[in-house]
Amino acid sequence: MRQIWIDCDPGHDDAMAILTACAHPEKLHILGISTVGGNQTLHKVTQNAKNVLRFIGADIPLAMGQQGPLVKPLNTAPEAHGESGMDGPYFGDGDYPLASENAVVYIYRQIMACPDKVTLVALAPLTNIALLLRTFPEVCGRIDCISMMGGGISHGNCTPLAEFNIYADPEAAHIVFHSGVPIVMSGLDVTEQATVTVAQIGSLQNRGRVSHLAYELLHFYNESGRQFGFTDSPVHDLCAVAWLLAPEIFRGSRRFVDVSTDEGASRGQTFADCRPVPAHPANALVLEGVDRERFSALLLDALARLDRGYHAGG
Amino acid sequence: MRQIWIDCDPGHDDAMAILTACAHPEKLHILGISTVGGNQTLHKVTQNAKNVLRFIGADIPLAMGQQGPLVKPLNTAPEAHGESGMDGPYFGDGDYPLASENAVVYIYRQIMACPDKVTLVALAPLTNIALLLRTFPEVCGRIDCISMMGGGISHGNCTPLAEFNIYADPEAAHIVFHSGVPIVMSGLDVTEQATVTVAQIGSLQNRGRVSHLAYELLHFYNESGRQFGFTDSPVHDLCAVAWLLAPEIFRGSRRFVDVSTDEGASRGQTFADCRPVPAHPANALVLEGVDRERFSALLLDALARLDRGYHAGG
Amino acid sequence: MRQIWIDCDPGHDDAMAILTACAHPEKLHILGISTVGGNQTLHKVTQNAKNVLRFIGADIPLAMGQQGPLVKPLNTAPEAHGESGMDGPYFGDGDYPLASENAVVYIYRQIMACPDKVTLVALAPLTNIALLLRTFPEVCGRIDCISMMGGGISHGNCTPLAEFNIYADPEAAHIVFHSGVPIVMSGLDVTEQATVTVAQIGSLQNRGRVSHLAYELLHFYNESGRQFGFTDSPVHDLCAVAWLLAPEIFRGSRRFVDVSTDEGASRGQTFADCRPVPAHPANALVLEGVDRERFSALLLDALARLDRGYHAGG
Amino acid sequence: MRQIWIDCDPGHDDAMAILTACAHPEKLHILGISTVGGNQTLHKVTQNAKNVLRFIGADIPLAMGQQGPLVKPLNTAPEAHGESGMDGPYFGDGDYPLASENAVVYIYRQIMACPDKVTLVALAPLTNIALLLRTFPEVCGRIDCISMMGGGISHGNCTPLAEFNIYADPEAAHIVFHSGVPIVMSGLDVTEQATVTVAQIGSLQNRGRVSHLAYELLHFYNESGRQFGFTDSPVHDLCAVAWLLAPEIFRGSRRFVDVSTDEGASRGQTFADCRPVPAHPANALVLEGVDRERFSALLLDALARLDRGYHAGG
Repeated sequence: MRQIWIDCDPGHDDAMAILTACAHPEKLHILGISTVGGNQTLHKVTQNAKNVLRFIGADIPLAMGQQGPLVKPLNTAPEAHGESGMDGPYFGDGDYPLASENAVVYIYRQIMACPDKVTLVALAPLTNIALLLRTFPEVCGRIDCISMMGGGISHGNCTPLAEFNIYADPEAAHIVFHSGVPIVMSGLDVTEQATVTVAQIGSLQNRGRVSHLAYELLHFYNESGRQFGFTDSPVHDLCAVAWLLAPEIFRGSRRFVDVSTDEGASRGQTFADCRPVPAHPANALVLEGVDRERFSALLLDALARLDRGYHAGG
Repeated sequence: MRQIWIDCDPGHDDAMAILTACAHPEKLHILGISTVGGNQTLHKVTQNAKNVLRFIGADIPLAMGQQGPLVKPLNTAPEAHGESGMDGPYFGDGDYPLASENAVVYIYRQIMACPDKVTLVALAPLTNIALLLRTFPEVCGRIDCISMMGGGISHGNCTPLAEFNIYADPEAAHIVFHSGVPIVMSGLDVTEQATVTVAQIGSLQNRGRVSHLAYELLHFYNESGRQFGFTDSPVHDLCAVAWLLAPEIFRGSRRFVDVSTDEGASRGQTFADCRPVPAHPANALVLEGVDRERFSALLLDALARLDRGYHAGG
Repeated sequence: MRQIWIDCDPGHDDAMAILTACAHPEKLHILGISTVGGNQTLHKVTQNAKNVLRFIGADIPLAMGQQGPLVKPLNTAPEAHGESGMDGPYFGDGDYPLASENAVVYIYRQIMACPDKVTLVALAPLTNIALLLRTFPEVCGRIDCISMMGGGISHGNCTPLAEFNIYADPEAAHIVFHSGVPIVMSGLDVTEQATVTVAQIGSLQNRGRVSHLAYELLHFYNESGRQFGFTDSPVHDLCAVAWLLAPEIFRGSRRFVDVSTDEGASRGQTFADCRPVPAHPANALVLEGVDRERFSALLLDALARLDRGYHAGG
Repeated sequence: MRQIWIDCDPGHDDAMAILTACAHPEKLHILGISTVGGNQTLHKVTQNAKNVLRFIGADIPLAMGQQGPLVKPLNTAPEAHGESGMDGPYFGDGDYPLASENAVVYIYRQIMACPDKVTLVALAPLTNIALLLRTFPEVCGRIDCISMMGGGISHGNCTPLAEFNIYADPEAAHIVFHSGVPIVMSGLDVTEQATVTVAQIGSLQNRGRVSHLAYELLHFYNESGRQFGFTDSPVHDLCAVAWLLAPEIFRGSRRFVDVSTDEGASRGQTFADCRPVPAHPANALVLEGVDRERFSALLLDALARLDRGYHAGG
C-alpha cells in the first residue's frame, strides 16, 4: 500500500489522474491533494479540484498552494484547457472543504506524520514541491520518490525544447531535479504515446456517471488538442499515476536530467546527459515508452470502478 | 523602538553590523539572528555568529538557515574573509545555543508572534528571506521593510555588474525585489563610500575588549581588501543597520530595481530603470551616498558602548 | 584634415550628424556614407540618406549595407522616427546615385585606398562595421578610431539597460568593442545631455533652406520624444561628429567596455568594468558630459553654413 | 560532376574527409580548401591541411580563413586531436602554397567565377561560411547546398547538448541555419554511428602509403577516443563528404533546425522543432542513420585508390 500525495493544477488530464488514483484504494492511499497555479490561476484550478472531488464524493484533504512560479511570472494555458482550466462539464453549485494551512506547510506536516515514506505525484509546475524540499529539507528523507509529469528529453510542446509544466517554473524544476530525491519522469517522450483514442472517448458517453464526466472532459480536451496536431488525446498526467499502479507497462532509462533556467531558446528544457561517459550519476528514471492499450484500459477500468461507487477515505 | 531580525553570513562586516545593532537596545530590539551559506559555508558562518554573540554575552535567539542558494550551487568568498569566513581573532572554545527549528520556520513564527511589524536586516544572500516570503506569504504584511546590503546600481564587485550577496543567489534576490515588501537597498553605490580608515582601525587596538575584537577583525579585513584596490575598508553590511539608526546620514532615490538571473555577463546584476519614464513604479529606496565621518563614528561609538558592557536581552 | 566614413540609418539625428559633418569640409573629408537596417528597414534609411544628400547637393559616395543584424532579426524604431524612419519633411521626387558594391566591400576598398588612416563615424547598429572588421581584418590597422553613437554605461532606452543601436545588434557591437580598434563611445550618458531646446528648434524655422529642413525634422523628432519623457531633444548621433569637430566640449573616461549578448534582461547592455581593479585594460573613451550650449551652437552654426551653400566634394 | 569547396580545421577526421574527396575526381571537383581556427589554432590546422595535401601531391588551392569564432573567444580541442591538432604521423619538412587572399574573399570569388552552383562542405566551426554569407549575400543563390558536419539533435559531446563545431561558434551556426541555403546536417545523430572499427584501422597499416598515413592518424584518434567512451572511431567529418558520394547509404528527416546562442546550459545546442505542428518550415535535411559497413568501406576504398596514385587537379 503506497502512501501518496498528489500536487496538481486541474486540468483535464489532472482530473483523469486523480480519478484513476481514487479508483485504487487497495493500492494507493491518498494522503491529500494540493493545487498550484499552472494550467490556470490558483483560484480556478482549486475550484476544479473541488469539483472533481465533490463529484465523486471524496473525503480527501485538499490544500491550496502557490499562486505562481517561484521566480518569474505565471503564464497559464487556456488554449489547451479553456477559460476555467477544465472546460467541458457543468459542475453546478456546491463546495468542498479546504485545509486551513497552505499546501507547502500542510504537505510537510502530513509527510512527517506518516509512518511510511510518501510518494509525491506531481502533475503541475513544481513550485509547491520545490518550496517544500527547500524550506523543510528534512522531508527529503521521508519521500520515497516523486512520480512527476513534466519535461521531455527529446522535445517540448510550449517551445521546441520545453514542456508546459517545466516551462512554467524552470527554477522549481531545477531544485527538484537536484534535490537528491528519486524521480520518475513521465515526460512527453512517453506521455505523447499515452493516448486515449477518439473511439475510446466516445465509448465513455452515458456509460456511468463518472465515465460520462470523463467523456465530457476528454471530449473538450480532444477537440482542443487538434490545433497541436493530435488526433487521439495524450493523457499526460495520468502517466505519473499509471506508473504507480502498473510499472510493468512502461519502459525507461536511468539518466542524469538537468533543467535549463536560461532566458532564451532553451528555457524550461529538461535535458539528459546521453554521452557515453556522462558527467553525473543518474537522478531520474526517464520513461520512454508505454503499452498504449493497457494504459488506456487502466483509465477506462478505473472509471468503471468509480461508476460502481467510490469508497476510499482521505 | 524597532523590532528587527538580522539574517547574515558573518563575515567581518556582518560582525560590525551585529555589534552595532547590539549596542543600541534603546532603538533596536533584536528578535533573533539567522545564518545562511554565503561568505563561507553555513557551518562556518554559524560558528562565527556564535563566536560574536558569545563574546559579548548576548542572549539573542540564533537559528541556522539554508546551506546554499535557492537554485544554483554555492560559491563562497574566502579571498575576502579567509578560510573561517571571519579570520583574524582567536575566539577559543565555548558554544552558543541554536534554535531547534530551521531559520525560515523560526523567523516566520517570530514575526507572526510579534505584535509590531518587523524590520528584516538582510546582510547575506537572500535565500532564507526568499523562502520565508514564498512559503509563508502571510508574513509579507507583517514586515515593515527589508534593510538589505546587496547589489549596486552603478557597478559590481564579483563581476563588473554583480555584487557578492546578489551574485550568490540571484533567484532569491529576484523573489525579494518582486515581493512587494518595501526595500532599503544598501548597494555598492553607498557601501563603498562607507569606510573606516586605516587610522580608525588602528585606534581600536587595546581600547577595550570589544573594540579590540573589532580591531582584529577589521585589520584582517583591511589587509584582504588591498587586493581589490581598497586602502580604507568599506564596512558594507553595517550600512543596513546604520540606516535604521541614523537615516539622516544617508541620501538615496526611490527606484524600480530588478535582478538579472540570466547566465552570462549580467548574472546577479541589480539594475534600476533610470529612464525618464520607467516601466514600473519604485520598489526600493536605493541609497547612493553617506556621510562617511558620521557613519564611521557610529561604529566606533557602538564599540565603545559595548566596551562598557552589553545589557540588551534577546 | 580627418578622413571619415559615416555609417548610418537615418533617422532624424543621423541627418543632423551628416549635415554637420558636411558643413565642415575644412576639418572633415567624407570618403563616403553607408547605410544599414536599424531605425527603419535598409530600403527606407537608404532613401532617407539619398534625400538628405540630394537636398544639399552633395557629391559623396553612398553605399548600401546590411539589411539587418548579424545574427538575430531586425526590430526597427518607428515609434521614435516614424514610418519612413525620418518623418517630417516632404522631399519630393529625385534620386541619388548608389555605389554598385555593397557597403562592407566598398568601405574596405576606400579605407585601403586612402593614404591616411580613416575615422569611422558609426551612427547605427554596428552590423556593417563588425563584418568589415572580421571579413577584412587588415583594415583594423588603417582605422585610427571609431567614433560611435551607441550604448550607455549608466542606463539604456530600449530597455532599462540597453540603448537602441546596441540592442539592435549586440553581437556586432561585441565584435567591435573587442576588435582592438580605439573607440570613442557617445552613449546615452552623454547624448541625453546633448540637447537642442524647443526654442532652438523653433528658431530654425524659415531661417534658410537647410535650417528649415532641420526644423521640420527636429520638430517631428521633438514631438515623438515627448512619449519618452524628453522636453528638449537629445541629438544622439550628432555627438559622434561633434567630438571630431570639438573634442574640448566633451569630458569622458577611459574604460573597458563590454557588451551583453545574453538573451534576457541585459541583452544589448554596454557595461564598463568600474571596479577599482578592472580585469582588462581600457578599450574605449566613454564620453560622460558635454557643454550643451556649445554643442547646440555647433549644430545651429553648421546649418547656417549650409544655408549659405554647400561646397565640399565627395 | 559536383563542384565543391571544403572548409575545415584538420583534425583527424577532416583529413579522412579530404582524402576521400580527393579520391573521387570523377564525382567531386574540389575548387579549393579553406581553414579556420577550431580543433586547433588557425596556424596549426593550416599546417595540417598543407601536410595532407603535400603528402598526396595535390594541386588544390588552399586559403587561410578566420582565426577564431565570430563573436566569442576560441577554445580548441587538444584532448581529442593532440597538440598539433592532427597528432600521429610525422610529415617532415616541406610546404604547400597558400592563396594570397583570405578565405572568405577567396571562396566568394571562386563561387562567383564557377559556372555551376557550388556545394560547400563544412567540417569545422562555421565562422568562414557565416562571414561569406553575410558579407557577400549574393553567393547564397550560387550555393546548391551546405553539407556540414556539426551539431546533433538528440545530444552533444562538448556538453550534454552541444557538439564541438557548433559550440565553438554558435553565432556563426545561427547565421548559417537561418541563411536560407539548403543544409545537409551530419550531426552526432549519424556521425557516432559512422565508425571505423579497431580491426579496420589495423588493416590499413603498411597497406600502402596513403592507407598507412590514415592508419597513423586513426590509430592516434582511436586511442584518444577511448576517454570519451568510444571503442570504434566515429569519423564525423567524413559523413559530410560521404553523403555527396553515396547519399543512398544514409537516412534522415527534413527538420527546422535552430541554434542556441544563449550563455548557459544550452549554448551551441542545435535543436529541431519536432512538434506535430512545427512553427517554421524545414531548413535542413538532418541525417539520422547510416549503413556503417558501406560507410567504412567507402573510406577504405578511397584510401586504396589514393595508394594507387592521386591524379585529380585543383
